[in-house]
Amino acid sequence: MGRVTERRRVIRVRNGVAGVRPDTLVAEEPLEIRLNGKPLAITMRTPGDDFALAVGFLVSEGVLGSASDVRAVTYCEGAAEDGSNTYNVVNVQLAPGVPVPDITLERNVYTTSSCGLCGKASLDAVRTTTRFPLREGGAADGVRIPARLLGELPDRLREAQKVFDRTGGLHAAGLFSPEGELLDVREDVGRHNAVDKIVGRAFQAGLLPLGGAVLLVSGRASFELAQKAVMAGVPVLAAVSAPSSLAVDLALESGLTLVGFLRGPDMNIYAGEERITW
Amino acid sequence: MGRVTERRRVIRVRNGVAGVRPDTLVAEEPLEIRLNGKPLAITMRTPGDDFALAVGFLVSEGVLGSASDVRAVTYCEGAAEDGSNTYNVVNVQLAPGVPVPDITLERNVYTTSSCGLCGKASLDAVRTTTRFPLREGGAADGVRIPARLLGELPDRLREAQKVFDRTGGLHAAGLFSPEGELLDVREDVGRHNAVDKIVGRAFQAGLLPLGGAVLLVSGRASFELAQKAVMAGVPVLAAVSAPSSLAVDLALESGLTLVGFLRGPDMNIYAGEERITW
Repeated sequence: MGRVTERRRVIRVRNGVAGVRPDTLVAEEPLEIRLNGKPLAITMRTPGDDFALAVGFLVSEGVLGSASDVRAVTYCEGAAEDGSNTYNVVNVQLAPGVPVPDITLERNVYTTSSCGLCGKASLDAVRTTTRFPLREGGAADGVRIPARLLGELPDRLREAQKVFDRTGGLHAAGLFSPEGELLDVREDVGRHNAVDKIVGRAFQAGLLPLGGAVLLVSGRASFELAQKAVMAGVPVLAAVSAPSSLAVDLALESGLTLVGFLRGPDMNIYAGEERITW
Repeated sequence: MGRVTERRRVIRVRNGVAGVRPDTLVAEEPLEIRLNGKPLAITMRTPGDDFALAVGFLVSEGVLGSASDVRAVTYCEGAAEDGSNTYNVVNVQLAPGVPVPDITLERNVYTTSSCGLCGKASLDAVRTTTRFPLREGGAADGVRIPARLLGELPDRLREAQKVFDRTGGLHAAGLFSPEGELLDVREDVGRHNAVDKIVGRAFQAGLLPLGGAVLLVSGRASFELAQKAVMAGVPVLAAVSAPSSLAVDLALESGLTLVGFLRGPDMNIYAGEERITW
């Protein structure tokens, strides 16, 4: 329940001189996500925005597309051995008629809480299952971002980060309008969680697809993050650090604009350069 | 099969001036790990050392303890739709008599490829299932590391990193002797994979438990990484960046020495300070 940081004793050594003091650490706790009462995935996350994280994860997995797909999101009572509520187990109850995916390890669909969908088969799956295609007359049509504006976003994200300066242990994700306005920012010990929270909060507010948005992540751009952007209909994903090969491949195949090493006026554009203007 | 980097076209922008050139990216591909032929987990990894990654993962999960537990490790033929070998599916066949864990989503044991074991129950599980306790007269007894030597290890790890300078997209893990000798270094798009590869290679060489070793990671120290260290009997885990609250808790409970923000003569010691000498 919002335990974003925790205090621990630390022996702090500076230039060989040691002193004992309290230290502020980023909180990390497991979150079990259940779908219609059945365990679906566990993720290690920073507590807070847990309902958004759960529904954002389910958007990424293709289970949810609009707010009406959800009947209720609740913490599970009695998840701990003593029957108390740990606030570490969230159940998402689908609305009547919403298809429940076949959840088995053998199908390999839901063993992937860390990595999103996986591999060649899943590249196909992303193309076929995203409800918000980036190429075909969707909400992302006509989105254009000036390169100079893009270069200003990392500083804006850092200014908005509340916890990082205290712990040094958090990934951040920020959602910006094409005009560079910061729409939302989330921080988490896991970069995929930060993005799921962004997507989940937009989902809860009825804002999907995020067709007019730029998603900026503080670290690297993995396949997983590119896939989450595509599933939420985000047309532009920018990262402060490097993308992976598979993230670039997915961006090229799905029409996602992918920018890496975004540092002021310098950047690498790996895909979708038509959305960047000069 | 050793596709550690891949080349992609990039539009490189420097000070507002754009040029097209080839770029070297870290390769990211899915690896499905099967146990006795049954799918167990998928991880997004940088190809290479796949067998080590698979057995290292199974050491972390408590399935494997010594090389004699394994009968064979193989790439699965016919995993692709056309029947070809993708080299992205590895099967670990246990030796006769080695217990096969009960793999179900409901038990929540193997949905956790990203985060290791999860939560309070799993903190208990780590304590009870690690074969190489750090406190009770094991191989880690008497390990002492001079603080000054510890401060030199990040530079040694960076010198040994082969791919990072080219892609900026890799996490590194290094294994050092108490004298500071670099025993092994692995790089991967996922930090947990880099550690699993280190542990797996040691496992294959019959070197577990790693009772006389320092494990250094290039980024942050999550619960997952602390758990992998404990499962392999590593007495000292050091990270260049911040640990999480749960990593510190696990270290305190299991007797692991945990050092964060290790930067030359500066460091924070969160647990197990008795192994650091001055």
